Amino acid sequence: MRVLYHLPLSPPCRKVRLALAEKRIPFELRTERVWERRDEFLALNPAATVPVLQEESGLVIADSYAICEYLDEAYPDMPLLGRTHAERAEVRRLIAWFDGKFGAEVTRNLFYEKQMKRVLGRGHPDAGALRAGYANLRPHLEYLGWLAETRSWLAGQNLTLADLAAAAHLASLDYIGDVDWTVSEAAKDWYARVKSRPSFRPILADRVSGEPPPPHYADPDF
Amino acid sequence: MRVLYHLPLSPPCRKVRLALAEKRIPFELRTERVWERRDEFLALNPAATVPVLQEESGLVIADSYAICEYLDEAYPDMPLLGRTHAERAEVRRLIAWFDGKFGAEVTRNLFYEKQMKRVLGRGHPDAGALRAGYANLRPHLEYLGWLAETRSWLAGQNLTLADLAAAAHLASLDYIGDVDWTVSEAAKDWYARVKSRPSFRPILADRVSGEPPPPHYADPDF
Repeated sequence: MRVLYHLPLSPPCRKVRLALAEKRIPFELRTERVWERRDEFLALNPAATVPVLQEESGLVIADSYAICEYLDEAYPDMPLLGRTHAERAEVRRLIAWFDGKFGAEVTRNLFYEKQMKRVLGRGHPDAGALRAGYANLRPHLEYLGWLAETRSWLAGQNLTLADLAAAAHLASLDYIGDVDWTVSEAAKDWYARVKSRPSFRPILADRVSGEPPPPHYADPDF
Repeated sequence: MRVLYHLPLSPPCRKVRLALAEKRIPFELRTERVWERRDEFLALNPAATVPVLQEESGLVIADSYAICEYLDEAYPDMPLLGRTHAERAEVRRLIAWFDGKFGAEVTRNLFYEKQMKRVLGRGHPDAGALRAGYANLRPHLEYLGWLAETRSWLAGQNLTLADLAAAAHLASLDYIGDVDWTVSEAAKDWYARVKSRPSFRPILADRVSGEPPPPHYADPDF
């Protein structure tokens, strides 16, 4: 069976889980505590990061960018990167926006500070980082809302990896109760649509022990 | 004419310049002082980052990941991402390694602190960041040297975007005199080979006013 090494709340891992589910590709999830630097895992990915996908053939693909590009090449039936050059440029621009810019400006400041530092025993959240994270989240939600208002999905007519990348980050921030959905009605409506997809059910069922999500987390009518 | 908006020493911009040159795709370079947030540029890329490629057709592609994937799709003659799924997974893993891990652990701590902070008027380099950057550079050079010793090029038999991504970061660090090439003879030999390619000449000719590179910077026999 195909195996995805992951961490439950990690946005890049969730993006890959969503892509696999949208493409109806079956896989087994294995939680990899990357900070333990297990030798067998380092042999799969010397960067010691998740996600890592191992195909039944033995092919190993490390890194969420490499995995997502591979999935669209190897399983093209439900294309998630767009068809024309212009569509693909827009999908990838937005993947880079959410995994890069949103990741550094918001997820790093909130999710890493509040969630990962605790897991890794690296102390308390930095107050300045939290302030920056909350301040940065607002314009990002407004931009996302603007995209959702002017298009069917974030990158255009169809659901793409741009939606999955954005939803993966927001779902992890929503798990720790950090998304103020009143900022943008359009962003909230878009997230409700993504959240209602069958591919999203396992994400909504994720639980980290000792740290339950807020009640609205798994509710599509939040 | 095709236009690439860039900053001269930026590693992701240099990766794209090298990819264009390896594919013999002509382009005009325009320096974009992204911190000025020019309206016309924000219309091309609301993330306000370089590189941005504008094709003669008007197609705009923002972000170095989106541009490089586009170039291999639109101009497949000199493939830079590999051919088989396994080759492409390895090339992309290493692109993610250098643009992601190396970028965060080394380039961010040295090049951003010493070069970009000065340009942006954000004060002096942080001593802790510099220490971390120098400490992190060594194992990265050793890993690069190990790859270069066991393969013709970093990702396998052929020169790929993995080599261009790695060389782009190292060339920018070398410009500010921060690469200790004695750490790995194999890494140095690999860099000398990349540096000798015609595609690299414009990179070696880059100059930032008031800040000349060390004498060995442009010398292929350094």
